[in-house]
Amino acid sequence: MRKTIIFICCLFLWKMAGAQELTSPDKNLHLQFSIQQKGIPTYTLTYKGKDVIKPSRLGLELKADASFIDSFEVAGAKTVAFDETWQPVWGEVKEIRNQYNELEVNLHQVSTDRTLIIRFRLFNDGLGFRYEFPQQRHLAYFVIKEERTEFALAGDHKAFWLPGDYDTQEYSTVTSNLSEVRGKMKEAITPNASQTVFSPTGLQTPLMMKSKDGLYINIHEAALIEYAALSLELDDRNFVLRSFLTPDAVGDKGYLQAPCKSPWRTVIVSDKAGDILSSKLIYNLNEPTKYKDPASWIKPVKYVGVWWEMITGKSTWAYTDIENVQLGVTDYSKTKPNGRHGANNAHVKEYIDFAAENGFDAVLVEGWNQGWEDWFGKTKDYVFDFLTPYPDFDVQELHRYAASKGVKIIMHHETSSSVRNYERHMDTAYRFMVANGYNAVKSGYVGNIIPRGEHHYGQWLVNHYLYAVTKAAEYHIMVDAHESVHMTGLSRTYPNLIGQESARGTEYEAFGGNNPDHTTILPFTRLMGGPMDYTPGIFQMKVSAYNPENTSWVHSTLARQLALYVTMYSPLQMAADFPETYRKYMDAFQFIKDVAIDWDDTKILEAEPGDYITIARKSKGKSSWFIGSTCDENGRVSKISFDYLDAGKKYIATIYSDKKDAHYEKNPQAYEIRKMVVTNKSTLAQQCAPGGGYAISVVEADDAAIKALKK
Amino acid sequence: MRKTIIFICCLFLWKMAGAQELTSPDKNLHLQFSIQQKGIPTYTLTYKGKDVIKPSRLGLELKADASFIDSFEVAGAKTVAFDETWQPVWGEVKEIRNQYNELEVNLHQVSTDRTLIIRFRLFNDGLGFRYEFPQQRHLAYFVIKEERTEFALAGDHKAFWLPGDYDTQEYSTVTSNLSEVRGKMKEAITPNASQTVFSPTGLQTPLMMKSKDGLYINIHEAALIEYAALSLELDDRNFVLRSFLTPDAVGDKGYLQAPCKSPWRTVIVSDKAGDILSSKLIYNLNEPTKYKDPASWIKPVKYVGVWWEMITGKSTWAYTDIENVQLGVTDYSKTKPNGRHGANNAHVKEYIDFAAENGFDAVLVEGWNQGWEDWFGKTKDYVFDFLTPYPDFDVQELHRYAASKGVKIIMHHETSSSVRNYERHMDTAYRFMVANGYNAVKSGYVGNIIPRGEHHYGQWLVNHYLYAVTKAAEYHIMVDAHESVHMTGLSRTYPNLIGQESARGTEYEAFGGNNPDHTTILPFTRLMGGPMDYTPGIFQMKVSAYNPENTSWVHSTLARQLALYVTMYSPLQMAADFPETYRKYMDAFQFIKDVAIDWDDTKILEAEPGDYITIARKSKGKSSWFIGSTCDENGRVSKISFDYLDAGKKYIATIYSDKKDAHYEKNPQAYEIRKMVVTNKSTLAQQCAPGGGYAISVVEADDAAIKALKK
Repeated sequence: MRKTIIFICCLFLWKMAGAQELTSPDKNLHLQFSIQQKGIPTYTLTYKGKDVIKPSRLGLELKADASFIDSFEVAGAKTVAFDETWQPVWGEVKEIRNQYNELEVNLHQVSTDRTLIIRFRLFNDGLGFRYEFPQQRHLAYFVIKEERTEFALAGDHKAFWLPGDYDTQEYSTVTSNLSEVRGKMKEAITPNASQTVFSPTGLQTPLMMKSKDGLYINIHEAALIEYAALSLELDDRNFVLRSFLTPDAVGDKGYLQAPCKSPWRTVIVSDKAGDILSSKLIYNLNEPTKYKDPASWIKPVKYVGVWWEMITGKSTWAYTDIENVQLGVTDYSKTKPNGRHGANNAHVKEYIDFAAENGFDAVLVEGWNQGWEDWFGKTKDYVFDFLTPYPDFDVQELHRYAASKGVKIIMHHETSSSVRNYERHMDTAYRFMVANGYNAVKSGYVGNIIPRGEHHYGQWLVNHYLYAVTKAAEYHIMVDAHESVHMTGLSRTYPNLIGQESARGTEYEAFGGNNPDHTTILPFTRLMGGPMDYTPGIFQMKVSAYNPENTSWVHSTLARQLALYVTMYSPLQMAADFPETYRKYMDAFQFIKDVAIDWDDTKILEAEPGDYITIARKSKGKSSWFIGSTCDENGRVSKISFDYLDAGKKYIATIYSDKKDAHYEKNPQAYEIRKMVVTNKSTLAQQCAPGGGYAISVVEADDAAIKALKK
Repeated sequence: MRKTIIFICCLFLWKMAGAQELTSPDKNLHLQFSIQQKGIPTYTLTYKGKDVIKPSRLGLELKADASFIDSFEVAGAKTVAFDETWQPVWGEVKEIRNQYNELEVNLHQVSTDRTLIIRFRLFNDGLGFRYEFPQQRHLAYFVIKEERTEFALAGDHKAFWLPGDYDTQEYSTVTSNLSEVRGKMKEAITPNASQTVFSPTGLQTPLMMKSKDGLYINIHEAALIEYAALSLELDDRNFVLRSFLTPDAVGDKGYLQAPCKSPWRTVIVSDKAGDILSSKLIYNLNEPTKYKDPASWIKPVKYVGVWWEMITGKSTWAYTDIENVQLGVTDYSKTKPNGRHGANNAHVKEYIDFAAENGFDAVLVEGWNQGWEDWFGKTKDYVFDFLTPYPDFDVQELHRYAASKGVKIIMHHETSSSVRNYERHMDTAYRFMVANGYNAVKSGYVGNIIPRGEHHYGQWLVNHYLYAVTKAAEYHIMVDAHESVHMTGLSRTYPNLIGQESARGTEYEAFGGNNPDHTTILPFTRLMGGPMDYTPGIFQMKVSAYNPENTSWVHSTLARQLALYVTMYSPLQMAADFPETYRKYMDAFQFIKDVAIDWDDTKILEAEPGDYITIARKSKGKSSWFIGSTCDENGRVSKISFDYLDAGKKYIATIYSDKKDAHYEKNPQAYEIRKMVVTNKSTLAQQCAPGGGYAISVVEADDAAIKALKK
């Protein structure tokens, strides 16, 4: 898939400390590396002459061993220029350019006679660097007590942050200056099924920031493999972010064996917010896939599902109301059904029918398997077997029925975080999927991790999530993991990882609600590492319409729900609401039917984190474009151009927008649909309601169609 | 397999506290249960009127929940008499009588409206009791903070004890009064690859004791399933033993879901030491096997192995001397062999030849698979794959060769305690075994457990060990687990668990040595729960003869090594020394060739823990008997009768005994062999050297044979 690779090597050798310099291909970014007093490795980063990272130390504290903190001298350094273009199996663009200048600094720790390599890659859109531990005489196995990487910021930036946590990212994003983090932390920590906050100034990555002088800065990691996930601890007097890894059950933060390497630490930076969204730096820092012919079995999926009805409380995952299940012992044929079980044959067939009628690829069915009565919050080891359906769910009949209509059923593996149990059943469960025609699984990790003491974002689980993905690949199964670790671009290497949750998704609209600016932030944070299974498309904003006992409501206009299919990129897109609801709004639903889920090109038309995002994308292999725009609670006028359309062609744009009096709280379902002819000379000024937005489909049209429209 | 079952039920109902009484079928044992002040359940046990257990409390402390400690009243009680005889798949006797009187006490905890059942079974040889948690409204999931079972002893007994530890039983047994435990603890704690001592008076079970008034008392547990292993903490002022469970990584001691039950707590008691050795109480408290036709695939195994040469340091498990291996990355074809790798084709064939020549069933081969260079002490996760041989071990060729000689190869799965890694590979590894003709595996758990923070004897690992056994059963594979939890009679239910190490075995004779009285204690302690893979049969007592750098020596005479095949019961018996050594002593080796490994009957002829044990056993389905006797460092004259032989028959006894001047330290290889005719009227007074013993084969003989002997 690589198109061009250009190598330029320059080799330097030092025997004493000195500064190494590196500039990005476009010369806007400048990195300086040096050894400071006591032999401490240090780096700085500037963008167009502005400080992004002030002098910041690098290193790792080891356990029961001399640390990689100081006593270093530069033994050698090497720079390489690299440029390639690669094609993702699925994605926002057809081709991704991976162009950087690399500096490899070979550090000799004098006190231990050990070698540490720090590799910097400077792209036009930011910096990636990692620690490498080559095979050597005095280093084989080592335990990380803490990684000691610093990001010394240039000031009290505005930040879009989540409380640092070992177990959940399902918080609402807080927007504040860094100096305000401490004061806002307590309020930010909302309840979750599993959560472990580690510091009053702990922050998660991707951390999006904006400096007072207009720089957009995003800090995250790439290629998180065999290492604990990165969090950051903020020194809020000096505005220094320090790496903070998720510990294991005994408090250690990493067990490594040389030769090995850390994940990449990434600093994406620009003076344009849209550049952050366009950045492919994180993917570029991941390895190319080794899968053979991945496109033959990895396909984007648009789906509906038996899901929102359980989330809202209208129906249940569980078949009965008993409170104590023992798999293999509890005889469901003798239990009393609760009458509200969602995943029953007749109901699933309704979803299959709806999917088939409207061109969806698949139907997700949750709650199909035994054990949901007491799956949650019990730290129950043998909680699911991933094989045995409830009496009212006929696996074979439903697959026969779905297949007859050209629809797939998406498997659901809720693990309840009982990870040993999942691994014990994994092979059998995947084989069961293959035997029954499933080719995708949504997995879940709700609740505290078993083995107890481990955390969702520790090295143990990081290893597990990837194990599940690579095992799935053996069976040609696509994975959509929920409650797993943040994404770090691994889908480049493992493209069957077609999505994750790893953030506060639409489900929280039924659990109290998401902030109206939520989806204007997520693309700058959560989505930096990979696609999110956000499950948009809610048309009935009052949850009480489905479950009178649930007073939650969706903090969005209906038109904005359509926009999310474009602004929240994912090769896995759900239409999350009920078929019966969509049937009431088939004109608006037409956009969900039409919208592509794989793209040749993407244009960030407008972007400001926390305020608004407008994106245009070109359908894969087609001439049509889809545009989505989402804004915060203030509403606005979006002004966009269509100059990316092919010159000389005409298109019909169908605009799904908020009505004038629409409002995410007071009048969310007020939308209107209009059509207009556009060319690459066209522009549009479109009103967005508070908490609103719009979606546009842009389809190439011949004269006859345009004539018909004008009538 | 059950022969007779007699039920007699007596039903009583109380609504208030009262004392319940139970006597053993032979009336020697008497149990009293009562509710004491504040509603605390209490029991006592006497034997022939002597106190065995003085009033002792029962209960469990729960976490984050009202505990099962007090506030109880007796809601009902029920007694049952039970008598059955069952046939083990393998064992010391052909038939086992399971006769007891049972008291089920139904306790109502007033403060919580919950039910706890305590079930007592009183056998002629002791007591078993357990906690049962029936399904009920106010109890489903609960976490054990500590089990609060007491064993209040009648005095400062002499005890045969190991330091309480979460991770190892590989200590030398200390013999002392209970009051001396604290003072001797520090010295008792010798180094181990994984060890976690929990208290200055912590003790392991089986704990063997002898009271000043001549009672032999053994405390242990039976049917350890889904629960942490039992240790005891000694209150050395009051001589009360308190249950102490192995915690998990977060300090909890058990995650349970009602309905469920604890393992049985066992108190075996007699005024004859031999009765302790004869007791089948622990097996009887386990469930009958559910395996279909287990005898068709579970067979006792006599084996030799490529093992002692690595233990002594003569050869190596590892193929090379590199210190850093990555499986799948390290290319062994490009590494330099160290020239001392034991498991090479030619050498394994020598063992196969020796096994075939001498009628052995199998050859154990350790160090056959890649990864041994850095397997130990690195807390390495992916340490072995259980599939990939070293370049000089040809799996298929060796199996072809072995099969052609009627010999099996025993698989070796050292896990290095990386348990997740083992479980991930287990199915594939077992399939690989079946495909290559292996039907037995020796597994090992050396080093600290991964997941880190878990312990060898916690609930997590208890679950794992049994998972490995039940999975193996699916493949008709027999398991011999080393470094796993103490045995608790589970082999009745899972007879493919044909042995375990779980104590300080012969290997320690090459690691500094075992006490000369070691094998006069193990049958009273470790072996109470099931057979031990002790690996006797060392003829070359100076380890330096094999490895000049190893100054250890075997604390036993050669004759005593033969005795161990009888005194240390196991359906899995190794001849652990080198073939070349055995070839020098073929006359003595004859006993190892002849001795049976499965038995119709067993007679404990002499027994005193720490001093001596003499046992006679009758071969399964044959008329021959084998006798073994082992004594401590003092030497003695063993006086035995042959009155268990069939009346009217004549036998030739071949006596393998210490020479007069034999001594375990000074002259261990001085043995003599003589033959004599014996009948059921015969007796023998046989001198045993210090650290010595003797072995006898007793073979029915016709007149011609006897005549020939007398010539």
